[in-house]
Amino acid sequence: MTAPLTLNPDRLFPAEPQTRAVARRLYDQVKDLPIVSPHGHVPPVWIADDVPFSDPTSLLLSPDHYVNRIMHGQGVDLADLGVPPGRDGFTAEQARNAWRIFCEHWHLYRGTPMKFWMESELVDIFGVDVRPSAETADQIYDAISAKLATDAFRPRALMDTFSITFIATTDDPLDDLSHHAKIRDDASFTREVRPTFRPDKYLEPGREGWGDLMDALAAATGEDTGTFAGWVAAMENRRAFFKENGAVSTDHAHTDMYMAPLDDAEAVYARARRGEASPEENLALRRAFMFEQCRMASEDGLVLTYHAAVHRNHHQPTFERFGADVGGDIPMAYNVVEALEPVLNAFGTHPNFRIVLFGMDETVYSREIGPLAGFYPSVYVGVPWWFIDAPDAIRRWRKAVTEYGTFYKSSGFIDDTRAFLSIPARHDMSRRLDAVHLAELVVEHRLEIDEAEEVVHTLVADQAREVFKIDG
Amino acid sequence: MTAPLTLNPDRLFPAEPQTRAVARRLYDQVKDLPIVSPHGHVPPVWIADDVPFSDPTSLLLSPDHYVNRIMHGQGVDLADLGVPPGRDGFTAEQARNAWRIFCEHWHLYRGTPMKFWMESELVDIFGVDVRPSAETADQIYDAISAKLATDAFRPRALMDTFSITFIATTDDPLDDLSHHAKIRDDASFTREVRPTFRPDKYLEPGREGWGDLMDALAAATGEDTGTFAGWVAAMENRRAFFKENGAVSTDHAHTDMYMAPLDDAEAVYARARRGEASPEENLALRRAFMFEQCRMASEDGLVLTYHAAVHRNHHQPTFERFGADVGGDIPMAYNVVEALEPVLNAFGTHPNFRIVLFGMDETVYSREIGPLAGFYPSVYVGVPWWFIDAPDAIRRWRKAVTEYGTFYKSSGFIDDTRAFLSIPARHDMSRRLDAVHLAELVVEHRLEIDEAEEVVHTLVADQAREVFKIDG
Amino acid sequence: MTAPLTLNPDRLFPAEPQTRAVARRLYDQVKDLPIVSPHGHVPPVWIADDVPFSDPTSLLLSPDHYVNRIMHGQGVDLADLGVPPGRDGFTAEQARNAWRIFCEHWHLYRGTPMKFWMESELVDIFGVDVRPSAETADQIYDAISAKLATDAFRPRALMDTFSITFIATTDDPLDDLSHHAKIRDDASFTREVRPTFRPDKYLEPGREGWGDLMDALAAATGEDTGTFAGWVAAMENRRAFFKENGAVSTDHAHTDMYMAPLDDAEAVYARARRGEASPEENLALRRAFMFEQCRMASEDGLVLTYHAAVHRNHHQPTFERFGADVGGDIPMAYNVVEALEPVLNAFGTHPNFRIVLFGMDETVYSREIGPLAGFYPSVYVGVPWWFIDAPDAIRRWRKAVTEYGTFYKSSGFIDDTRAFLSIPARHDMSRRLDAVHLAELVVEHRLEIDEAEEVVHTLVADQAREVFKIDG
Repeated sequence: MTAPLTLNPDRLFPAEPQTRAVARRLYDQVKDLPIVSPHGHVPPVWIADDVPFSDPTSLLLSPDHYVNRIMHGQGVDLADLGVPPGRDGFTAEQARNAWRIFCEHWHLYRGTPMKFWMESELVDIFGVDVRPSAETADQIYDAISAKLATDAFRPRALMDTFSITFIATTDDPLDDLSHHAKIRDDASFTREVRPTFRPDKYLEPGREGWGDLMDALAAATGEDTGTFAGWVAAMENRRAFFKENGAVSTDHAHTDMYMAPLDDAEAVYARARRGEASPEENLALRRAFMFEQCRMASEDGLVLTYHAAVHRNHHQPTFERFGADVGGDIPMAYNVVEALEPVLNAFGTHPNFRIVLFGMDETVYSREIGPLAGFYPSVYVGVPWWFIDAPDAIRRWRKAVTEYGTFYKSSGFIDDTRAFLSIPARHDMSRRLDAVHLAELVVEHRLEIDEAEEVVHTLVADQAREVFKIDG
Repeated sequence: MTAPLTLNPDRLFPAEPQTRAVARRLYDQVKDLPIVSPHGHVPPVWIADDVPFSDPTSLLLSPDHYVNRIMHGQGVDLADLGVPPGRDGFTAEQARNAWRIFCEHWHLYRGTPMKFWMESELVDIFGVDVRPSAETADQIYDAISAKLATDAFRPRALMDTFSITFIATTDDPLDDLSHHAKIRDDASFTREVRPTFRPDKYLEPGREGWGDLMDALAAATGEDTGTFAGWVAAMENRRAFFKENGAVSTDHAHTDMYMAPLDDAEAVYARARRGEASPEENLALRRAFMFEQCRMASEDGLVLTYHAAVHRNHHQPTFERFGADVGGDIPMAYNVVEALEPVLNAFGTHPNFRIVLFGMDETVYSREIGPLAGFYPSVYVGVPWWFIDAPDAIRRWRKAVTEYGTFYKSSGFIDDTRAFLSIPARHDMSRRLDAVHLAELVVEHRLEIDEAEEVVHTLVADQAREVFKIDG
Repeated sequence: MTAPLTLNPDRLFPAEPQTRAVARRLYDQVKDLPIVSPHGHVPPVWIADDVPFSDPTSLLLSPDHYVNRIMHGQGVDLADLGVPPGRDGFTAEQARNAWRIFCEHWHLYRGTPMKFWMESELVDIFGVDVRPSAETADQIYDAISAKLATDAFRPRALMDTFSITFIATTDDPLDDLSHHAKIRDDASFTREVRPTFRPDKYLEPGREGWGDLMDALAAATGEDTGTFAGWVAAMENRRAFFKENGAVSTDHAHTDMYMAPLDDAEAVYARARRGEASPEENLALRRAFMFEQCRMASEDGLVLTYHAAVHRNHHQPTFERFGADVGGDIPMAYNVVEALEPVLNAFGTHPNFRIVLFGMDETVYSREIGPLAGFYPSVYVGVPWWFIDAPDAIRRWRKAVTEYGTFYKSSGFIDDTRAFLSIPARHDMSRRLDAVHLAELVVEHRLEIDEAEEVVHTLVADQAREVFKIDG
């Protein structure tokens, strides 16, 4: 006997009846508002070419490290799940089998956000009404496959279905942004798809291949990347190109948030170009590069988002076998208040500068990021991502950053996902949890209902547009 | 149409009816008890001279960095709010305009403790019944101004109204404490106003002007501050003077909590006096000075409070323009268990020694301060202050420190404020939240109601008196 | 008039009626399941010789540092409580007086887990029905004493009463395990009592007496502990002996979790044996020893548990007077993600390797341990112990580690106690809190009731057996 799969309209709402009633009232006012997604990882080619999705596994499992890692943690071989995604020789039968493995492990996801997202997708998007299990795996696989074969499930149609009015992709600085141009030039498609400038690897002189990147950067921009000044000019060149092509932000992720000018930047840069810089010099250079990115941001006005504090590819054998982004990245301790002192002294009150800080340490959010955002006009509190993008963690985050960071300095919800079909569920989770947080303030007489209604509307409809300077 | 402003009698109480009923019952038993405020920043001259307050802005806005920083975080110029407080040339019209700015930004405070405090003040103290907004700003300003012009709103009358029976100020070691003497000598005023010895700047040999302070210290005490031994003698002299004048505690704030004796203290001290000590030596000297303060505390019995772990004046341009204490201080990571090892090995079980530890990192409270207080008879858990002095943070703190630190090793509520009119609201928030915490224990059958009644009474009426050795 | 002492059947359950009803339903399904205790500190001789307990103080107070430290924190002399336990000359009258001191201080335990445990023991095990107080101390003492004199209160009978089917002790590597052999050889006693290999002091070359331990290790194994290779062989020898005698795990506690091979291990080891190694070398050697323990674990399959991050014996005078384990150990900050990189790169996906990580920092649990366990098949999340083994902390822990670590990578409950009579209460607390956590997921429609029923059964009945590879 298979268990049914349904979505309760009150999911994530607390049981206490008064609180639930207020939460429901607040949620009802925002649940159908369009989605604005200022930062994520959906490939622009999907939308440019309206690429049809091939099968459930390559769409929902292989590329989703949130889902994969839980099975890997129980001994499943990532290769059996189609990792790395799109690899040669992964057959249709293997894809179907990967889905079976997933459905057999469905119980593992109890208590996780992946369960919330996946259930929402199965029911709301694909109309599945049975719980995943060994018995139902094939039935679900076939049901999803049948939908994916229809035009209604191609990316552009889904953007309509999901009511996504704005979505940003994440792009290499040397990308020609031709996919974005194609989308923009197509008058029949009016939803906004914007690039995001993500230059991390051009800022890490200690990483293998950096010299080649510098050569490519020179070739693309006509600047002399043999000098620090030339590096800066080349970066300004590409940022301008991204801005012309509609970018509203740049995104950055390094292992710490320190940024500071470097006195002898040219000399250190020259040594780095020759591959002769010490690890300490390479680190100082990266921090100087980031300081320059902030300085540029204060001039060109692109919003800077910083996703810090992750130990990438913790398990080297997994990295060597499957590559990056397969679940082996682990959060770690970091420092914000000291790390940002130079850059906030330089640009913290600059009217054109805006920095959104993302972390994965709840203590740092409440102790450092919230208070910094409360004081500095340029600083915003990034929302929970990755290992804290989950109901209990989001509840804690909102309680931790609001009392001194305020609702009005949080970034608005950001899904940060490459799992395209999970976007509505992620935004829905956020809207529900904001409604719950506000409902608690209302029933505890900390906020009037009309105030809560204004806040929830601001958080869902306005805040991301305001923070990311999104027009219209 | 203006919205009404009222205070719900059940504010901060959870919605669940049984819990609310128990919370209300516990709160009712302590809500009208007198206020004991063992540490704060109210200027003693206000009480000594019963100085009338001039206007709403200079009383409620300009000096309150909790309030200011939220507007600054949205781009408001601190100068427009009358910062630094009392500065020359800030006109009556500018003061009124500052209040308008505040009222226009009233929505920013949603979800913050400043909303709770300010609403309590407006309604309970000033009888305001309309919500702050652009439309109501002038009306509220005029209403408050009218009250401030009456005798009932001078500091001594307000102390009666607020039922403050004991309040400690914070004073420079060389202060002559004449304001305190005046208060003490006035038989018509029987409420206790006590000084607190706050010697931070005399313990920081690396800070500009330290030599001049040493000269002044010598002049005031007749001790030779050319030597470490003389510094110690001078400090003992001033501590004795404060104790004679009614002080019950000394207060300290440095960027870390490390304290340790220094082997070659005299030599390092001599170099510091000549301005020739290295940064490391200055740091070691400060830690040795703090160790001496603890040693003195074990002898003279003054309670030592330590407010650590703040990066002061994070934004140098703001500090240069407006000075200290204008919202640019940000919490940071720190260590307690290692830092206090030497001093607790020396005085941790000394019957005369008592140290109250304040932090702004909830993890440190639960991981280090709570366990230390559980074991050491001399160690007490300071209450949440500053960025954690807010309902959700206070709830988390009580849950984090009680299970191993116990109710009986917490310090009793301390408002730590320079916002005189917020004192009743701050104590009221604390009383409500203690009632809620205890109510939850009762309804979960972790505590009997009679036990909870005893605890809430102890926390509100006795604990601060007991910890700070306050008589009567 | 004395207050009654009763246990409410709904204790620890939330007041909200729907949640309470679901929690009760889930709890009812597991409350009577047998206890499996894979790690603790009960002396095996108690069970081997079925040693009768002498009096309430030596059983319940003197050896229990959880209980003692709270009184010490209020100035009670540990000597008056019979610390160190079993010391010569502590008379029957002193024991009775210690119990009086405890009962007089009973109020201190309000809000602590010691209250929950002790009340459960008094009511459920000893049938006490009056609240501890100065007035009832003797009455309770006599009631407990009378029970302890009966055969029903000897260890083996209590194991039956408590339904403990499996319990592991903690043992020195050179222990001859004769107590375990005696238990195993007694066909009349069928409950499982297993040793645990705990080699800490053999891994700390910097500690006094390490050389003597090495000599003893050589004598016991016949290996040449003059070399690193010999140390390894000796350890393998003793681990094999423990495994033959039924051990399922090894337990480790050092101040950090770093483990890494050492290039010149033999040379450093030789210097350490001569007492000439530097502190840095001793530290590196300990980390290399731990790396070897992991390598051995990947071969012999013993589960490795790591209890890190405690500053032992913080108060040297207390340590000198009373020895270790008397309440002076304090948690501290530590790092997991960096510390475990080498060992997880080496053995993280080894099918035979299993490591259970215990910490006392909730942030580290959610930021590092949960995510590591989510990814690595070999890594499990240890449950809250010591200063976080308490209702509020356990609730926070479960919420913090489940969303990305999952229910299925937590270790199952581990009481880790030397307080034998508290074992049922500790497991009961855990079962209640798991039921509450799951009930909240159910009423918030994050989990179906049948899913929650499966999970609570898994957590209580299966997870510890599965993680610790316990047969039967």
